[in-house]
Amino acid sequence: MNTNKPDRRRFLKNGVALAGLAVGGMRSGVAQTLGSEAVERHAKVAESYGERTRFETVARLPQAPTPQYQRAGIMLTPLQDSVGIITPSSLHYIATHNHAVPEIDPRQHRVLIHGLVDRSLVFTMEELRCLPSVSRVHFLECANNSTQLLAGDGRKAETVQDTHGKTSCSEWSGVPLSVLLKEAGVQKGAAWVIAEGLDLVKHAQSIPLEKAMDDIIVAYGQNGEALRPEQGYPLRLVTPGFEGLYQVKWLRRIKVVDQPYMNLLETTTYIRPMPDGKAHWFDFELPPKSVITRPSGGQRVPGRGFYEITGLAWSGGGAIQRVEVSTDGGRTWKDARIQEPLHRFAHTRFYFPWTWDGEETVVQSRCTDERGQVQPTLTEFLKTRGVDLNYWKTTKARVGFFNGIQPWKVTREGSVQNALL
Amino acid sequence: MNTNKPDRRRFLKNGVALAGLAVGGMRSGVAQTLGSEAVERHAKVAESYGERTRFETVARLPQAPTPQYQRAGIMLTPLQDSVGIITPSSLHYIATHNHAVPEIDPRQHRVLIHGLVDRSLVFTMEELRCLPSVSRVHFLECANNSTQLLAGDGRKAETVQDTHGKTSCSEWSGVPLSVLLKEAGVQKGAAWVIAEGLDLVKHAQSIPLEKAMDDIIVAYGQNGEALRPEQGYPLRLVTPGFEGLYQVKWLRRIKVVDQPYMNLLETTTYIRPMPDGKAHWFDFELPPKSVITRPSGGQRVPGRGFYEITGLAWSGGGAIQRVEVSTDGGRTWKDARIQEPLHRFAHTRFYFPWTWDGEETVVQSRCTDERGQVQPTLTEFLKTRGVDLNYWKTTKARVGFFNGIQPWKVTREGSVQNALL
Repeated sequence: MNTNKPDRRRFLKNGVALAGLAVGGMRSGVAQTLGSEAVERHAKVAESYGERTRFETVARLPQAPTPQYQRAGIMLTPLQDSVGIITPSSLHYIATHNHAVPEIDPRQHRVLIHGLVDRSLVFTMEELRCLPSVSRVHFLECANNSTQLLAGDGRKAETVQDTHGKTSCSEWSGVPLSVLLKEAGVQKGAAWVIAEGLDLVKHAQSIPLEKAMDDIIVAYGQNGEALRPEQGYPLRLVTPGFEGLYQVKWLRRIKVVDQPYMNLLETTTYIRPMPDGKAHWFDFELPPKSVITRPSGGQRVPGRGFYEITGLAWSGGGAIQRVEVSTDGGRTWKDARIQEPLHRFAHTRFYFPWTWDGEETVVQSRCTDERGQVQPTLTEFLKTRGVDLNYWKTTKARVGFFNGIQPWKVTREGSVQNALL
Repeated sequence: MNTNKPDRRRFLKNGVALAGLAVGGMRSGVAQTLGSEAVERHAKVAESYGERTRFETVARLPQAPTPQYQRAGIMLTPLQDSVGIITPSSLHYIATHNHAVPEIDPRQHRVLIHGLVDRSLVFTMEELRCLPSVSRVHFLECANNSTQLLAGDGRKAETVQDTHGKTSCSEWSGVPLSVLLKEAGVQKGAAWVIAEGLDLVKHAQSIPLEKAMDDIIVAYGQNGEALRPEQGYPLRLVTPGFEGLYQVKWLRRIKVVDQPYMNLLETTTYIRPMPDGKAHWFDFELPPKSVITRPSGGQRVPGRGFYEITGLAWSGGGAIQRVEVSTDGGRTWKDARIQEPLHRFAHTRFYFPWTWDGEETVVQSRCTDERGQVQPTLTEFLKTRGVDLNYWKTTKARVGFFNGIQPWKVTREGSVQNALL
């Protein structure tokens, strides 16, 4: 390969990984045939609602098939194949209760605003569409994302889909909940709202009124079209930065009340037992979190040379301010490039240039949000929670939201492995 | 309806349009059943790659079935149903040549960089994925969008899908073309690049080198996953702000050259005959344009009362700086609210509050981009092009890109009609 231009930035000069890339001197006759053999046939344009090509098979996978997770019907987003910050709606993670998705006729659907209001209101979907609206890019994340020890087939959680697949990011469109509440007239003494869905368990969630009046969206749109069925069609709450259980799907009513209710799931499934025997109620905001999606567990780095490391960062604290990457097992950290424009409470794509020397190493990322909150290591996380590693490993899901740094080991053979445990 | 709180903003106080909305005094027993009858059944979570609900039937439609358009295989985006700024990939407009979409095996696909470079380079898809990348939200628009006089079924273009459906907006991901060109080493004397696709006509397009080194993306990702087949799978150019023909799909090679080539389509289909008998070659940037998508042609405003008017604005000149809306036939204009954050060369969603008094009127929008370019009226447009209305109506498509203001007439019955012609 011609390397007589040392002044030019050359990603490919350590060319092992990209062997056979240079074709200096190729005659244009050869060039003319390039790629032609890749065309299998020419199809006619026809589709009114298009599909992806049969060559693409990226897929959601089920959570570990334990009885608990099977009941929850959890499907994980394939983050290892993600690009940009939008998750395709077809690949958005799913977490339901009782594994059931209601099929709702939007012409029949109504949402009720009642409780401590001057006037109860009922809205049809068409009426909601006439009201002031917003569209914003927000991530959602299940409260127990990254606490799973096993992958869907029973092996150790190995890929980033296994470890982080319960978060996705969409452009959500709908009416600010504050518009509906102001229209109904919130009365003195009101302090919380109860949002209830139409799923089989009638999931109801207590949410502070302050958040309801701030930035919650009563959303009918996801990535430019109607919500997908598993995402609450035709109507859901999007509660920016809060845990997944506040993102009430198949929304049927909002009741304005004076205190939180003891709703079924929030007092059983979603309390958090503490080591001292007490239980913690209501975690709202998700803490800052990031993960390298490429290269990540289960992928292969084909050889020495240049690679762009990329991943996602997000926080319930607002916008991501900084992402740092280490490619030497945590000894040194350097700033990653962040995709702009920044969105608050959204996945944020980061990029980091890396030239691999072929030796075993560990790559990992850590982020800082607009409040200055920094993503912790596992050790730091355990310390703040007041538990030891053994306790956490055996009761992991119940220690609550885990936002620790995710290290990926790259072996000399180029395989990438989960190095957290 | 209780209106004893005049200090509170009440969208619904002119309640005819939203009749039956208030249910003051509804007992909670009634409330409990709300929406339940809308549930048809509960389905199991299963899909590894999800689909939309059967209740949603929003669809692309074919362009008018004239021989010219049929050959082009054009499918129009249903902008009247759009929310936010992302167009679902399944609804992205399609404009192909010869109505044919190549099916390309990505494992076999290669792209060649050659011509006036120090070293020719060939990249596989996997090799491109290792290089520095970007993700940006950009609109695409066909050069002859809004010049069609007829809708798909032969009637006058009536809906915003008919009139403006050849523009869509996605988050595109890929490698900056400048990265590949720097890697190959651009030689002295180079001034243009020729980008060629693998479609049947081997569409090749001359593009100034300056643009190629600036912001063109060699894109493999669209809205978080691989490109759709009709959008150039597995690889296309995204040339921000330039006309559709510069967005070369099924990209197979980039040749660096010293001057534009006389490629087939750019010297036949895409020249623009002028009234003086000469032909205009190369329009690059699209001018500022906006349109109200709701309410728009073919929709119905159900009655007097509050509605949020919403629409999209975009420009090849960069970011949208301002959108104004008139609801009185153009006599007065007021600033619309613009969805943030702003993206350059992207659809920009705007919102405008409107209380309809039930009288016939015309609603329309106009935008201004970051350079201060203002969207013209039809009359202003014709003046700058030096043609009269009759000439334009009969040879509309050939006068070139039309970015005039789109007026929608709202009749006393609430029907919305194309008021441009």
